[in-house]
Amino acid sequence: MKKVLVLGAGRTATSLISYLSKQAEKQNWQITVADQSLELAQQKTAGLPRANAISFDVFDVYQRGKEISKADVVVSLLPEDLHFHLVEDCLENKVHLVTASYVSDEMRSYHESAIESHVILLNEMGLDPGIDHMETMRLITRIKDKGGKILSLRSFGGGLITPESDDNPWGYKITWNPMNVVIAGMASARYVKDGKLKIVPYNRLFLDTEIVDVEGVGKYEAYPNRDSIKYRKIYHLPKLPNVYRGSLRKKGFCKAWNALVKIGLTDNRYIVPESQGLTYEDWLSIYLTHRNGETTKEALKDFLNVSNNSDIIQKIEWLGLFSNKRVRLKNATPADILLDLLKQKWVFKKTDRDMVILQTEIEYQLNGQKEKIISSFVLKGEDSEHTAMSKTVGLPLGIAANLILNNHIKERGVIIPIHRDIFRPALKELSNLGITPTERVTEI
Amino acid sequence: MKKVLVLGAGRTATSLISYLSKQAEKQNWQITVADQSLELAQQKTAGLPRANAISFDVFDVYQRGKEISKADVVVSLLPEDLHFHLVEDCLENKVHLVTASYVSDEMRSYHESAIESHVILLNEMGLDPGIDHMETMRLITRIKDKGGKILSLRSFGGGLITPESDDNPWGYKITWNPMNVVIAGMASARYVKDGKLKIVPYNRLFLDTEIVDVEGVGKYEAYPNRDSIKYRKIYHLPKLPNVYRGSLRKKGFCKAWNALVKIGLTDNRYIVPESQGLTYEDWLSIYLTHRNGETTKEALKDFLNVSNNSDIIQKIEWLGLFSNKRVRLKNATPADILLDLLKQKWVFKKTDRDMVILQTEIEYQLNGQKEKIISSFVLKGEDSEHTAMSKTVGLPLGIAANLILNNHIKERGVIIPIHRDIFRPALKELSNLGITPTERVTEI
Repeated sequence: MKKVLVLGAGRTATSLISYLSKQAEKQNWQITVADQSLELAQQKTAGLPRANAISFDVFDVYQRGKEISKADVVVSLLPEDLHFHLVEDCLENKVHLVTASYVSDEMRSYHESAIESHVILLNEMGLDPGIDHMETMRLITRIKDKGGKILSLRSFGGGLITPESDDNPWGYKITWNPMNVVIAGMASARYVKDGKLKIVPYNRLFLDTEIVDVEGVGKYEAYPNRDSIKYRKIYHLPKLPNVYRGSLRKKGFCKAWNALVKIGLTDNRYIVPESQGLTYEDWLSIYLTHRNGETTKEALKDFLNVSNNSDIIQKIEWLGLFSNKRVRLKNATPADILLDLLKQKWVFKKTDRDMVILQTEIEYQLNGQKEKIISSFVLKGEDSEHTAMSKTVGLPLGIAANLILNNHIKERGVIIPIHRDIFRPALKELSNLGITPTERVTEI
Repeated sequence: MKKVLVLGAGRTATSLISYLSKQAEKQNWQITVADQSLELAQQKTAGLPRANAISFDVFDVYQRGKEISKADVVVSLLPEDLHFHLVEDCLENKVHLVTASYVSDEMRSYHESAIESHVILLNEMGLDPGIDHMETMRLITRIKDKGGKILSLRSFGGGLITPESDDNPWGYKITWNPMNVVIAGMASARYVKDGKLKIVPYNRLFLDTEIVDVEGVGKYEAYPNRDSIKYRKIYHLPKLPNVYRGSLRKKGFCKAWNALVKIGLTDNRYIVPESQGLTYEDWLSIYLTHRNGETTKEALKDFLNVSNNSDIIQKIEWLGLFSNKRVRLKNATPADILLDLLKQKWVFKKTDRDMVILQTEIEYQLNGQKEKIISSFVLKGEDSEHTAMSKTVGLPLGIAANLILNNHIKERGVIIPIHRDIFRPALKELSNLGITPTERVTEI
């Protein structure tokens, strides 16, 4: 009997566990869902005949080794920086690992040993990274197979909310790991434009935006996402003159977020002295060093050089940064304080529905004609538990586990889903599950 | 016979070694000057009867232990992050240590063990930090002794060049550790103003400037230097409503340096891909993502939103950032590339003279009258070898070694020169050596 160990039972686990348990019934597997909170793991496995729940501490070396050694595949939903704790145990016990996280340098360093141990360490197998790689590779492969030449590759992803759930000026709620929202883009981003390398430092990342028209849902804005350049090599297009990956937000979000960055509220490198008990206005005032204006709001307007009815000021006011509410955290960084505030304001309510967007735009030359294909995934969640994010991150992970257990994946070592024996069956299965892109081709 | 071990024989060591060797003759000490480069150590000890030179590798655990165990005091001019390698050996062998570096968290963690071992770990014993602490404590103590109340404390320091040596638009040359110039202020700075905490993030540190009128040499500009707030506690003025420490530059420097920060050229957290062989113009262009303008110069003007005759553009052009000269470094961070360029452009020539400024401004209330005292040290170097920086960093270190060897310092553990038994005799000896402030008191 094959065994799957799922680490983490948070929101993202819902669709994953549901998918795996269906496969378990069909294929006679056993699923173990492990979480710090036994209660949460039990909630997620309640009523599922082939799934059991355990309390799990990733730092408990003994338990970690024991549980991993019992599994055939581990699917880890743990934070990115915890995956490497699992790898040694996976290699020792010849257990495969699937994650939705970016390949870290630490993870990459295990490539050779994983090949030697004949183990798959499959990463970037969620939505973005994940479905984006698979869809990009599907389109590239198709164009190349027809004899076409790729000219430009741009892909955009976003974990947003449906227009009907949008009841705040930011057009944003917390539908996934909230700390990632606060520290998004903290390193510089890079991409290739007209054959030239471009680097955007964090201090102006959220000003370096462009408008993206998404099939069916209208215009959003994108800011550059991490290192796009490395994907030239990964996608086997080493000379591609245009490569860009962007993260989507509602229009107007980025300019206001840039103001928070400029003020200094997203920094995670130092503790704000005596933060607990400061009003949010006090906290904001700390950063207005050469104050010009009667009120903090006026001083901020002056600092940002914006007018009275600026929607940046409206967004910041809505967050409560001019209010006399008190900061709850002590020994907190600015990023911690902002996160705690956002968790209170950007509440994803029970009846809210999230919306995931993934759009891939490829320009190419085929039979003497320049064309552009736009492939768009737009998926809306059912409610706050059965989210589109949970589906689009969880299902690829579950599908990958299935492919591995049925020996459909030949590659070994640290891999991402750019291989035909992964992206072909995985996209097909996603389509069977209702996750399928619209495609539009235009001449350019 | 007492023995002093000097680690590092760079420019800063000149005055230190000269001072120590005079004391050595008087007091029958032996000085050992240790450097990675034996040649450099030999140059610095040539002709000095009581000094010898050795080649030294701080990472050679055996040699380090051996040399430290032979000494009574170690004076370390090594980079800040290397001092802690010395501490264990100092404690084990009950050898005192003197440095001109800020107390790091690592250094601080040795406080209790140093007290137990009856060892002095004296840090911040150079110019700034160093003489600034001593002068501040001298003035504060005098005012308090008279029954006065301190209202405001501001101190400004700078390692600059004399007006006669100023032949470039930045008014700056490399007279000390050049990497410190490039990464200056990379963390946020903080100070207290009218009783309120103020924090300035790096992204606008060099815009948060003010003009300082320095006795005898005119107006300079200051940007906030690291964490000023902690000095309230250190100087025993826990409620002081105004505390500010600033770093001095020639007027106009900070606005132009801020442009380099904004562009992204000072970042030290990532490697620029294929940097070697890029022209400086290519390199600059990498950061101009939404290029607007025919030439790179025009695009930069547009990006910075400055006019044709902007002195920011003039300074950047003078650095050669629009030129087709090639970057020499490979696998280099932006900070590395900029540093390499600055080393070529901000050359401190043999005939140039540096100028050190330290100005302490204290407002206080005494007998119902508010007064302000301004104490200014302005010291010019003799030439590129006998610099004011070398004197003002090296002499306090040498004086401290002398005080320690003559048992004048009672404190043990990790200390800085805020204690009477250090700052009184040290300032007196500095004055004997010609380093003495002008004082001006005004009613306010």
